[in-house]
Amino acid sequence: MSARPPVLVDIKFNPEGVARVLKTAFADRGSINLADPANRARDLGDVEYALLWKPDADLFQRAPNLKAIFSGGAGVDHIIGMAGLPEIPIVRFVDRSLTTRMSEWVVMQCLMHLRAQYAHDISQRQRQWAKLDAPEAAEVTVGVMGLGILGQDAVAKLKVMGFDVIGWSRSRKHIDGVETFDASELDSFLARTDILVGLLPLTAETTGFYDGGLFKKLRRDGALGRSVFINAGRGKSQVEADIVSAIREGTLGGASLDVFETEPLAADNPLWGLENVFITPHDAAVSEENALFRHVEAQIARFERGEPLQFVVDRAAGY
Amino acid sequence: MSARPPVLVDIKFNPEGVARVLKTAFADRGSINLADPANRARDLGDVEYALLWKPDADLFQRAPNLKAIFSGGAGVDHIIGMAGLPEIPIVRFVDRSLTTRMSEWVVMQCLMHLRAQYAHDISQRQRQWAKLDAPEAAEVTVGVMGLGILGQDAVAKLKVMGFDVIGWSRSRKHIDGVETFDASELDSFLARTDILVGLLPLTAETTGFYDGGLFKKLRRDGALGRSVFINAGRGKSQVEADIVSAIREGTLGGASLDVFETEPLAADNPLWGLENVFITPHDAAVSEENALFRHVEAQIARFERGEPLQFVVDRAAGY
Ligand SMILES: NC(=O)c1ccc[n+]([C@@H]2O[C@H](COP(=O)([O-])OP(=O)(O)OC[C@H]3O[C@@H](n4cnc5c(N)ncnc54)[C@H](OP(=O)(O)O)[C@@H]3O)[C@@H](O)[C@H]2O)c1
Ligand SMILES: NC(=O)c1ccc[n+]([C@@H]2O[C@H](COP(=O)([O-])OP(=O)(O)OC[C@H]3O[C@@H](n4cnc5c(N)ncnc54)[C@H](OP(=O)(O)O)[C@@H]3O)[C@@H](O)[C@H]2O)c1
Repeated sequence: MSARPPVLVDIKFNPEGVARVLKTAFADRGSINLADPANRARDLGDVEYALLWKPDADLFQRAPNLKAIFSGGAGVDHIIGMAGLPEIPIVRFVDRSLTTRMSEWVVMQCLMHLRAQYAHDISQRQRQWAKLDAPEAAEVTVGVMGLGILGQDAVAKLKVMGFDVIGWSRSRKHIDGVETFDASELDSFLARTDILVGLLPLTAETTGFYDGGLFKKLRRDGALGRSVFINAGRGKSQVEADIVSAIREGTLGGASLDVFETEPLAADNPLWGLENVFITPHDAAVSEENALFRHVEAQIARFERGEPLQFVVDRAAGY
Repeated sequence: MSARPPVLVDIKFNPEGVARVLKTAFADRGSINLADPANRARDLGDVEYALLWKPDADLFQRAPNLKAIFSGGAGVDHIIGMAGLPEIPIVRFVDRSLTTRMSEWVVMQCLMHLRAQYAHDISQRQRQWAKLDAPEAAEVTVGVMGLGILGQDAVAKLKVMGFDVIGWSRSRKHIDGVETFDASELDSFLARTDILVGLLPLTAETTGFYDGGLFKKLRRDGALGRSVFINAGRGKSQVEADIVSAIREGTLGGASLDVFETEPLAADNPLWGLENVFITPHDAAVSEENALFRHVEAQIARFERGEPLQFVVDRAAGY
């Protein structure tokens, strides 16, 4: 049996962690870490599998014999538009721990808005004893946009916490105890929503999707008074200038954002300082390297046994 | 049928709300609201039922013919020690909405410590993009003290969010998937606990219970680094001077407190300004007047039909 070509790894996050964990990954064939300067000029002609996160622009030219591409994260928007992308399967990263962490973040942000954490925080800094009368979760409708792996887990956990939960996706989903809407029913979905949770992938259709017009369609007479926008999908789905004006004008009563049009978010961006807006630096659900490499190993093993790959992206849909 | 004597109401919270909702409560017998100056000198000799929250000291002298006492909240420590307390049933307030709200607060506080909300908040105010690597919930053990109505609901919801959850109570409870400890196993419980959640009633045994000695027994090498103390039971169960020194010395890495030795918390109390300490003004789970009056009506109806009252306090145990 001839030696198997190594797996190509070109991921731009956590270089020290990746280098360390890569030592024990892909034991049967080894790997080529493009972050290592020694590999800058290496011939990639025989490479069959590539694990990528925001890869170099010339990657597909240098590795023309790929059989499958693995994304270093749940999203694939960093690959889909690339010039020279070959017509081979693209597998995204799906992982229990990543899903759990995203739901931790989503549930925490919804609770912080429900329980007026921003106002409590101000009282605390002013050393003022100011009881706040919050509605209970059942009085507030959380509308989850995107009912994929992440959206469905968040929906289930928000329900357990007592929220009224509704959901929206391209094709209608059926979820026990949750009213669901499909793409054509966007306006009725928005009119019911007090807290909007965005868990959509970035595609042509979702680019610039969360804008002033959409915010105006959210429910206005809900138990929270004003509606709230939460986004942990992708930043380019949101129009940040519109978020800023919606908060300032009072169309939105608050927001929680983990993703941004341009990351890192610039220090002079007005989002940092807005009232009742919580900012996290795209760390809602990080890809853990060990889990990522195990997932790629398992998918390569399936592929080589002749079984279908899992979590393959629909290239026409873009996710 | 002779007219039934009105229900006596002496509750010191939300006077406007109480007065408003009381108009439509107890329709079959009416009520006497002691907060109304017109009732200051009223003869209470024939009153049979009293709904009380921190009642006046002379109340039991003025109303010597009570058959049952209803607490305006889940706790009864505000009544139990009172001089002249008659030997009649004391019923505490148990309500789905109150329970749900408490679990909202508990889960939110646990998530804020898990996900380093305090550190994120500092980064946000400094406009700094600083990713933080949090453990996932499964790596953190939440130890819930008090497995009554509130503790058991919190345990179930913390489990759903992915936390490792253990529980402690006077008599051992059996809860699927949760390791439980009884009063005699306090030290082994504490040694396993990363985030301590206090949902104990205030009794002689639990007064001054959360002290420096107890904090030192919490786990020290957990995924959060240092352990966290959360209390929404009663403030007199905690020794605040010890919380302050435990945080300053690093025995505790953080805290969330809804209850205090003296309420309202004084403006010069050091707790307000401590690192990674979240303060809420005893509003984790408020008694909603409508629900409270419905509960008392239902219990009086049971009592008068000859059925046993529910949620009756064990006077020897004090809760
Ligand atoms: N912030 C972070 O740390 C972080 C971490 C991981 C992932 N993410 C983001 O989260 C996204 C979602 O992840 P996932 O694993 O849940 O993806 P997924 O399983 O592919 O689910 C995507 C969902 O969005 C819906 N959708 C896509 N385009 C739509 C459109 N134009 N209109 C209506 N609905 C549409 C899909 O509808 P159908 O069900 O009809 O297909 C599906 O329900 C990822 O793409 C990534 O960008 C962020
Ligand atoms: N902050 C707020 O807004 C708020 C709102 C409502 C209530 N509370 C407080 O929360 C408390 C708990 O409410 P609940 O409805 O859950 O009460 P509960 O149903 O009576 O439960 C009390 C629990 O504490 C345990 N316990 C009592 N004394 C103990 C001791 N000395 N050692 C060990 N365990 C002990 C009991 O053990 P056993 O199971 O063996 O009896 C039981 O599991 C109330 O008493 C009240 O003070 C606060």
